[in-house]
Amino acid sequence: MSSVPLSQITLTDPFWSGWQKTVIETTLPQQFEQLVATNRIANFELAAGRKEGAFEGLRFNDSDVYKFLEACAYSLAVAERRPELKAAADRVRGIVDTCIDVIGAAQMPDGYINTYFQLGHPSKRWLNLNAMHEMYSGGHLIEAGVALFECTGDRPLLDIGIRFADHVMSVFGPDTRRGYCGHQEIELALVRLAAATGEAKYADFANWMVEERGHAPSVFEAELGDPESVALAPEAARLLIGTGEYCGDYCQDHAPIREHTEVVGHAVRAMYYYIAAADLAADKGDSALEEALERVWSNLINRRMYVTAGIGPSASNEGFTGDFDLPNLTAYAETCASIGLVFWGHKMLELTGNSDYADVLERALYNGALSGISLSGDRYFYTNPLESRGSHQRVPWFLCACCPPNIARLIGNLAHYAVGASSDTLYLHVPVGFEADVELGGGPVHLSCKSNYPWSGEMEVIISPDHPRDFAVAVRIPGWADDVSFDIENAVEEAEYQNGYAVFRRTWQAGDKLKIEFEMEPKWIEADPRVRDNLGRAALMRGPLVYCAEQHDVTYTPQLFMADTEAPVELGQNASLGVTTMVVEGACEVELFPEGLYAEVGATDVAGSTATYIPFYAWNNRGATNMQVWTRKL
Amino acid sequence: MSSVPLSQITLTDPFWSGWQKTVIETTLPQQFEQLVATNRIANFELAAGRKEGAFEGLRFNDSDVYKFLEACAYSLAVAERRPELKAAADRVRGIVDTCIDVIGAAQMPDGYINTYFQLGHPSKRWLNLNAMHEMYSGGHLIEAGVALFECTGDRPLLDIGIRFADHVMSVFGPDTRRGYCGHQEIELALVRLAAATGEAKYADFANWMVEERGHAPSVFEAELGDPESVALAPEAARLLIGTGEYCGDYCQDHAPIREHTEVVGHAVRAMYYYIAAADLAADKGDSALEEALERVWSNLINRRMYVTAGIGPSASNEGFTGDFDLPNLTAYAETCASIGLVFWGHKMLELTGNSDYADVLERALYNGALSGISLSGDRYFYTNPLESRGSHQRVPWFLCACCPPNIARLIGNLAHYAVGASSDTLYLHVPVGFEADVELGGGPVHLSCKSNYPWSGEMEVIISPDHPRDFAVAVRIPGWADDVSFDIENAVEEAEYQNGYAVFRRTWQAGDKLKIEFEMEPKWIEADPRVRDNLGRAALMRGPLVYCAEQHDVTYTPQLFMADTEAPVELGQNASLGVTTMVVEGACEVELFPEGLYAEVGATDVAGSTATYIPFYAWNNRGATNMQVWTRKL
Repeated sequence: MSSVPLSQITLTDPFWSGWQKTVIETTLPQQFEQLVATNRIANFELAAGRKEGAFEGLRFNDSDVYKFLEACAYSLAVAERRPELKAAADRVRGIVDTCIDVIGAAQMPDGYINTYFQLGHPSKRWLNLNAMHEMYSGGHLIEAGVALFECTGDRPLLDIGIRFADHVMSVFGPDTRRGYCGHQEIELALVRLAAATGEAKYADFANWMVEERGHAPSVFEAELGDPESVALAPEAARLLIGTGEYCGDYCQDHAPIREHTEVVGHAVRAMYYYIAAADLAADKGDSALEEALERVWSNLINRRMYVTAGIGPSASNEGFTGDFDLPNLTAYAETCASIGLVFWGHKMLELTGNSDYADVLERALYNGALSGISLSGDRYFYTNPLESRGSHQRVPWFLCACCPPNIARLIGNLAHYAVGASSDTLYLHVPVGFEADVELGGGPVHLSCKSNYPWSGEMEVIISPDHPRDFAVAVRIPGWADDVSFDIENAVEEAEYQNGYAVFRRTWQAGDKLKIEFEMEPKWIEADPRVRDNLGRAALMRGPLVYCAEQHDVTYTPQLFMADTEAPVELGQNASLGVTTMVVEGACEVELFPEGLYAEVGATDVAGSTATYIPFYAWNNRGATNMQVWTRKL
Repeated sequence: MSSVPLSQITLTDPFWSGWQKTVIETTLPQQFEQLVATNRIANFELAAGRKEGAFEGLRFNDSDVYKFLEACAYSLAVAERRPELKAAADRVRGIVDTCIDVIGAAQMPDGYINTYFQLGHPSKRWLNLNAMHEMYSGGHLIEAGVALFECTGDRPLLDIGIRFADHVMSVFGPDTRRGYCGHQEIELALVRLAAATGEAKYADFANWMVEERGHAPSVFEAELGDPESVALAPEAARLLIGTGEYCGDYCQDHAPIREHTEVVGHAVRAMYYYIAAADLAADKGDSALEEALERVWSNLINRRMYVTAGIGPSASNEGFTGDFDLPNLTAYAETCASIGLVFWGHKMLELTGNSDYADVLERALYNGALSGISLSGDRYFYTNPLESRGSHQRVPWFLCACCPPNIARLIGNLAHYAVGASSDTLYLHVPVGFEADVELGGGPVHLSCKSNYPWSGEMEVIISPDHPRDFAVAVRIPGWADDVSFDIENAVEEAEYQNGYAVFRRTWQAGDKLKIEFEMEPKWIEADPRVRDNLGRAALMRGPLVYCAEQHDVTYTPQLFMADTEAPVELGQNASLGVTTMVVEGACEVELFPEGLYAEVGATDVAGSTATYIPFYAWNNRGATNMQVWTRKL
């Protein structure tokens, strides 16, 4: 199976069509303002010789511009099928053209481009692969070029990316110099470039880098012995050193990928690495590599993932620690890491056809990733803790601004992850609403899915092939749904159940209706007791959404509330947030306490109370306050 | 009131007499081995020109040697009254003489001594007061000199300390150069030096430094603008910088001391600062300064202190954060900080006569401070978290080794904090067992207290003046005791109750017996609900001891246990640890869970169970394992 090109599909449900509108109208212009204000664009102008001055910002700031352009590409494709977004699209198109022009002018004749090195350290290219992110930034350039080419047909940025890729391959390779980037990214980009250009050499090169990593002697360990290399980023060295010796965990350089059993180190790097590896495993039918990926995935999902699909609990390495170590208040759970998990889950889904991967993809999408952006579309979380004691809040930008453009590209490209097609099957991975015109083997099929997901579990799919013919519609049965029902109007067809999908294989005629209903009852979830931080606690979910209590909805600090998980949960609406709420009965500790910090048990009063829960992604849209996902059980 | 000189008192209860034996027989020799092995002694030999080589270790390593010598002084005084410790004392005496000899040889003709600067940076003295700890180290030198003089009558180290103090006062002062140390210590040392020598100039100088601190312009802020100064300790600069601007919180340089309202910054620095200030407030009868200290104390005790009297929750500044922020697993709660709290509490007690300060002193002594050393006397905690998930354990030494000698000097000098005397009153602050010969106004009094504290709340005090006469015995009523009873054999005298002390003022005759009984029932304690980390939890105490559950005593991870705080608590004994244990009924979660990290509520089984609790100070003496203080309530 593969995804449906954005040119053939439009998301129509209120949820995602609204988000896609917000991104093109608000998010992208706001991000461009920030790229300009922080001199990320100016760095290219300096490198192009159009201005005088010095590089400003972090050494990998170019990548934010590229990732932003990739997000623009998807939004332009979305707007192509939504005329009401034309004005916004024209504005974005203008921004894109401006950026491509200056990037092209900044590229050096040999294909190298990295404004940090071009402007301040021209002689130090490729000296410190572990920390300087030259390939990482270039990977995002390649992705942006591929995306613009695929979404708009425009080649200029693709050609810039190709020149950079060719340059990298002129410096590194099995027969020249061994090397790979401290922050994976270019691997998956090169796989995309191979697909977009039909040039297998890019995928072969990516494969070489994926496989070389983790084999001793480590490229990075050697760099740590070179003072000139270390001097480029002294603070980065400590991340590669364990207790006195080189320890490649931080950037997954600890062992060859086929020997990986646990997910370790920097979370985003791990995700980007495994995305490339999944693509390569699929391309080559490499079952040993696939097994390694499944092992690591299992460790991640069954031992190291927050209920929100946030991953990477620790700030110190922006990444993983040990099994079941999932503190809530201090959770790092970077937005980019959950976005990476959506991407990797999608690759694993395409590789295996197993709906378990879509369950995780969906969990990350609606919770740990989407929480990264405000409902207004112009404020962002870098970290996504599951509890707040009042200070955590979204901001317009970051010094290290990887997350904002990442969430923009995720939302713009969402149809890619939600709906798939093979030669004879249409897949609904996530039951968003959409209109699609798909080539399915024997000819075009118009598909329409009416959905009010994630608020409702009822959908109606209208299947209209140009002429009656045989193909399949495969609907994922969400892991959270205890009960599902399907009904094909005027028919009695039963589904086949395969890999967690209900597959309806029949002769479809124009206008055939498939009605779907997933039971979407509120559910209290508990964690494996080995997650010590969640002992005695439960989290409320409904459908794919994890809920939380935020102080705005109650008169007390949510942490004081104990939920009766057996009481009925009442559904409601919060119009300002545009969400379904849930009201829960329980009891609340009263913050009256005798003088002094400690007293004999009995000093705390408890009173019956109720709490209102809102979706986790929607918190912190009414000012900074207390919040928690995991409620104590009464 | 003041303390009873060590030459007049011997601790006799099994608890502390045992600890004092361990310290002189095991702890001090083991620490000297470490001082030698880590080249802390060699640094002095190099500075003295007795060896060739370079300084090794941290820039403030000299201070560990000094603090060790201060600990030796107290232990030598203890041994003076305990003949069975003579062999150990002789060994310690030899070590002390060796050290003093080389320290004296290392001191420069002008009185300056600091081997880090003498060996590697002779021209950079006093260039970076905020980070280089020259006065801090010298303060410990002065304290050691005073202690050896007071405990043994020997002057050589005192004279070395005096020469250093005079040197500092020749460089800094109201009429010469403004300056004070980033890490407070010399202030309290100079106050001690003034008392030992009768030279008020040292106290006056200390007073000047205490008062100058926190006044703009900051001495440290100016240093941050001097690249040569910053280069001495670049990493220290960040601790002084808040969000872009100088912020003196870290070293209590944020405001003049009389304006302090909250305890902020590095915990040990804060304690040492306020100890000096309390001494000065007492000397001068300065009620405004006393009020400032009481304000800060109240903030500390009522909002920022763990139940163990651990203080300073954060590793990032080794210190304080905000009110009620007391996470258990990640608690820093440095051993030295709790020791500092014992010292400060004692000064406040002497200043005010109020037993509330003794309650805190006692809490810190038996819990947060004593947990810093293993029962074997040769392993140490730097940090004292209230929960462990298996990895935290004591070690023989630290790169930054402030805590080991600090706990050794606390234990050696314990009688100082436990018992006091004024001209006509004997104070029992902490009802340890002891034999003392005290000059009380009209002549000598022999006092004997039989006690098995902290295991029992019953004591018997025999008061034997050389002839019948009037004086008072004041016994602190512990804050934890719900019921107390006193009985003077063959008499019906009632106590006066003053400031939390029961005061018996009468004509005492040789052999008079005062029997004391403090009810010592197990108690479940809860925290103010604003301590979010303890919501729904209780801690078990008995007398002054905070208890914890350690996995060695149960077949499950203690974190899984929920205590029935209304069930009777059964007392027991653990012979190997030498402690009274408590057995509690409750229920335990069973670590069987369906596949996957999350499941609908009901997946966790719960079974009735009991847990055995041991004193917090005694945990981690049987290998690293899980432990927690705050148990969930059933």
